[in-house]
Amino acid sequence: MAEGTVAADQLRLFIERIERLEEEKKGIADDIRDVCAEAKANGYDPKIMRMIVRLRRMETHTRQEQDAVRGTYRSALGLAEGRAMPGHSNSTSIMYRKRAPGTK
Amino acid sequence: MAEGTVAADQLRLFIERIERLEEEKKGIADDIRDVCAEAKANGYDPKIMRMIVRLRRMETHTRQEQDAVRGTYRSALGLAEGRAMPGHSNSTSIMYRKRAPGTK
Amino acid sequence: MAEGTVAADQLRLFIERIERLEEEKKGIADDIRDVCAEAKANGYDPKIMRMIVRLRRMETHTRQEQDAVRGTYRSALGLAEGRAMPGHSNSTSIMYRKRAPGTK
Amino acid sequence: MAEGTVAADQLRLFIERIERLEEEKKGIADDIRDVCAEAKANGYDPKIMRMIVRLRRMETHTRQEQDAVRGTYRSALGLAEGRAMPGHSNSTSIMYRKRAPGTK
Repeated sequence: MAEGTVAADQLRLFIERIERLEEEKKGIADDIRDVCAEAKANGYDPKIMRMIVRLRRMETHTRQEQDAVRGTYRSALGLAEGRAMPGHSNSTSIMYRKRAPGTK
Repeated sequence: MAEGTVAADQLRLFIERIERLEEEKKGIADDIRDVCAEAKANGYDPKIMRMIVRLRRMETHTRQEQDAVRGTYRSALGLAEGRAMPGHSNSTSIMYRKRAPGTK
Repeated sequence: MAEGTVAADQLRLFIERIERLEEEKKGIADDIRDVCAEAKANGYDPKIMRMIVRLRRMETHTRQEQDAVRGTYRSALGLAEGRAMPGHSNSTSIMYRKRAPGTK
Repeated sequence: MAEGTVAADQLRLFIERIERLEEEKKGIADDIRDVCAEAKANGYDPKIMRMIVRLRRMETHTRQEQDAVRGTYRSALGLAEGRAMPGHSNSTSIMYRKRAPGTK
């Protein structure tokens, strides 16, 4: 009986610790969502920002090798980058998709 | 040009904010894993603890309705709870699977 | 050159095989969704049906042990099943939540 | 009683249909894994093949816009593609990473 009570208390403490941490984790996930929303409101593309975060996490040589292999595969499948946008200015001001807030 | 630089700086700041938050989130996920490992070392089952965390998040009436429906479905499929453990003592000391650390 | 072409063809064939399989997988996922929708239209709860599918996949003794441990944890945390529904009839006709289609 | 039996039978049929479909889905997921393993044994990179599958699913203009935005973000963050591999031959035979089976 006493042993069971002790165990129940211990279990409850473990579970409450997990719950607090889960709540913190959720709070941070919300913060990330907020930053993405703010970036989007400033004209940036959150999905591509997440790609950049993944790229920055990679070792330089891993990233370069992945770039090279992906480039070759894309060429082999007729999906080469850049090729298909004749006349596209590629200027920074366009690329950043920076716009006055409120415009489409 | 100057505009592009400003945009690059702004983009970098957004990305660095996301990276810091991702790192915090990962830290918390590690903490959760640590609590689960500690609970496991004390004889608790982390997988079932996570079920309990989910149950505690639910509204009481939602949890009760889910219990009732699941109980009926289990009976209908011949998976009723408890039925199949004749002679099982169900005593707390067994149930908690509490063991001296180091024993299997 | 010729080697590169051969490799490109081989890569394309691998990728097309993956695409066909991904499409089949998506088709089956759609079928599962359809069965769940049909079950729901007949008054069943798809979410709890998925729980049942998981339970049926488990070995009997694993399922029984999980039931026992979860039951104990729930009691320890004051979430014991069944206890909290005084007056609830638990009759099959209610439990199945069977209703004429179109009723809420 | 009879009604309950009918409902139980109907529920069981729904669940068995889901189980059969889940099994088919698992079989296809296994097939995809096999194709990836075969491609890998032939020197291709399955992870990048999956990226190609995703790219082929996209509309051309969506893919081109994503390429352009990602390229600009990478430049802005100092991760521009290709730049950092001086002397890298980029020849097809290397890019495909084609090797005799059994070599590392």
